[in-house]
Amino acid sequence: MATFSRSASALRSSAIRDLMSLASQPDIISFAGGMPANELFPVEEVEELFRGLSDREKRSAFQYGPTQGLPSLLESLAERLRRKGLQMEGNRILITTGSQQALNLLARAFVDPGDRVLTERPCFIGAIAAFRAAGAEVRSIPLDAEGIDIETLEKALGEGPKPKFLYVTPYFHNPAGILYGERRKRELIDTLRGSGIPLIEDDAYGDLFFHPEDRDRLIPMQALPHDGVEICYTGSFSKILGPGLRLGWLLAPEAIYGKCELIKQSSDACSPSFTQVLADAAIRSGMMEGYVERVQSEYRDRARAMTDALRRHLPDYVEWSEPRGGFYIWLTLPEGADAARVLEKAIEAGTVFVTGSTFDPEGVRRNTMRLSYCNNTPEEIERGIPLIAEAIRECCG
Amino acid sequence: MATFSRSASALRSSAIRDLMSLASQPDIISFAGGMPANELFPVEEVEELFRGLSDREKRSAFQYGPTQGLPSLLESLAERLRRKGLQMEGNRILITTGSQQALNLLARAFVDPGDRVLTERPCFIGAIAAFRAAGAEVRSIPLDAEGIDIETLEKALGEGPKPKFLYVTPYFHNPAGILYGERRKRELIDTLRGSGIPLIEDDAYGDLFFHPEDRDRLIPMQALPHDGVEICYTGSFSKILGPGLRLGWLLAPEAIYGKCELIKQSSDACSPSFTQVLADAAIRSGMMEGYVERVQSEYRDRARAMTDALRRHLPDYVEWSEPRGGFYIWLTLPEGADAARVLEKAIEAGTVFVTGSTFDPEGVRRNTMRLSYCNNTPEEIERGIPLIAEAIRECCG
Repeated sequence: MATFSRSASALRSSAIRDLMSLASQPDIISFAGGMPANELFPVEEVEELFRGLSDREKRSAFQYGPTQGLPSLLESLAERLRRKGLQMEGNRILITTGSQQALNLLARAFVDPGDRVLTERPCFIGAIAAFRAAGAEVRSIPLDAEGIDIETLEKALGEGPKPKFLYVTPYFHNPAGILYGERRKRELIDTLRGSGIPLIEDDAYGDLFFHPEDRDRLIPMQALPHDGVEICYTGSFSKILGPGLRLGWLLAPEAIYGKCELIKQSSDACSPSFTQVLADAAIRSGMMEGYVERVQSEYRDRARAMTDALRRHLPDYVEWSEPRGGFYIWLTLPEGADAARVLEKAIEAGTVFVTGSTFDPEGVRRNTMRLSYCNNTPEEIERGIPLIAEAIRECCG
Repeated sequence: MATFSRSASALRSSAIRDLMSLASQPDIISFAGGMPANELFPVEEVEELFRGLSDREKRSAFQYGPTQGLPSLLESLAERLRRKGLQMEGNRILITTGSQQALNLLARAFVDPGDRVLTERPCFIGAIAAFRAAGAEVRSIPLDAEGIDIETLEKALGEGPKPKFLYVTPYFHNPAGILYGERRKRELIDTLRGSGIPLIEDDAYGDLFFHPEDRDRLIPMQALPHDGVEICYTGSFSKILGPGLRLGWLLAPEAIYGKCELIKQSSDACSPSFTQVLADAAIRSGMMEGYVERVQSEYRDRARAMTDALRRHLPDYVEWSEPRGGFYIWLTLPEGADAARVLEKAIEAGTVFVTGSTFDPEGVRRNTMRLSYCNNTPEEIERGIPLIAEAIRECCG
């Protein structure tokens, strides 16, 4: 029999995946996924964009492209990122096969087996998986409503081996739903300054804001003064066009970019030219910005339907907060409650969510849960939330 | 400053890449690339296929899919592989982001840093890169006109630490151009039987045969009796539809499949749904088979133009053989000649190819070179080959 590598031998299927197969049953109301709503995809617009391309552009969609990405998309994306205030000088963009690949490349660029990396708690499950696949030991720092806890971070930096990087998702966090405060972002930069620990800033959801007055809070840390801190900024077309395109990006200081590009070369040679051509056309035509405005408003309605329902049905002892963008609401049950038992009851009643322990790198905290509203109509939300509330009452009542 | 991982610190840009940037200059006649011809891509057909899809199918093109691939494509591809005689029982298909990703996943499933793997000599550069990125030490076994040298393989198996796998490209080899003989394939299976060393069989070019009477020789080893040998069979849509779709596959025994699927999950979540939907429609409609027949005939014409020109212009002391399919012709110069010097002269004269040492895992053999005819019209070939012949004469004459 073949002998697997040590890292492959250690791999196990995740609880969230086994759940997702359940969540795809047609009758169940699922608040579990992080998938954009099928009915919102800009199908006709993209079809029209493709029709409008020149023969040369269409042919390039079928061909290999440079590992770093198609030149025209690199240019249009750079322009879009510049408008967000991101610093391009001394940095380069790498188009990746979803932002999941950006996390994978960064993990392989930095992590040797046994190395420590820091994340938030809770943390995006795809990041935990990418870091662990490279052999990282993940240590997590708690979040509060304003962002990562600076005191705990300082403590973690002061003890044990030096972490290879810190990974954060400051904008409509998956799963915690929060938006970092401006002051907290500056404190975070100050804390890392001169430490030699790069910051990975994941901005997969930032475009999905519900309140234009939040724009200032959405300015990336990479766009703030950050002398003495190397920042790798990642983003994705998944939420602003469609995850089926499998396109994301990494904006990184040149030396880090160079390593990631070489690792990508032997990973999948290049990202799909076919969808790069479409994404480029979607940016240049203005179609994408129009689409983003449409889905902002749609997701705001869905979020409001869910918060209305939560207010009416949830027992008072459950803590949660109003989302200001993105896909998720994070619920905290009383200390000692077990969200896994709530999930069992909820599934019996015909609805599903993800337990918070799934997003806990240490896997010990049991009393939290993530609800997503992105893939449900207000009507489904109206029907599903009372079932969730009832399941909570049965377990914590 | 950030500290890179050991494997990332060791990464260097490859010579072939630096060459490729040169090869994209408009005036140069390039026999260097392995890219299908732009003018042959089935642009109109694929556009029509997309138009003909149902709204549900179009929407699924924008959405995340399962890590293993879209169910409908897994089904249509399985049917196509079954027709080639491949054994599906006890095996599963994983859709990958190009077959480059299949090699990357297999490397990470099997290789710990310092482990030995076996390849042919010469060997596909993308495979060498994927194996090395996982930390493998690559040992190569020479090829002759019928395939891998069995005696040297047996010797390599008998000495030193047990290799993690053997990687071969038996069908229109990149870069050697050869097609394995039937007997050699059976001998290879016999040699590996019971050794516990899995075989990776790369069939990226098998569909591009020029002579229907070769069909029997094209039967994959995975389709022959191979009790006691685990075979991982990889393939690609790159040559039969377009590399810009970034779709390939791995057909592997279930345990190996399981590891690769988990590694893929944290690598890029899933391959592009957008192009999976198109590939599925191209198979089901019969469009792809029609396209394959068209390009077979076109590449046969290009190959003939090149062999005619080589016969007329090359000095007698250069060895090469008639291609029976695929993209490449492999030239062997006299012992002691340096193909790198030939390349310099050729570039001065306005044409480019790849030196054989690029494909030599040990990097020591200097007197071979690869010409590709896939991306040139017969007219370009007529103009370019005399320049190559002249460069050879200047260096070896």
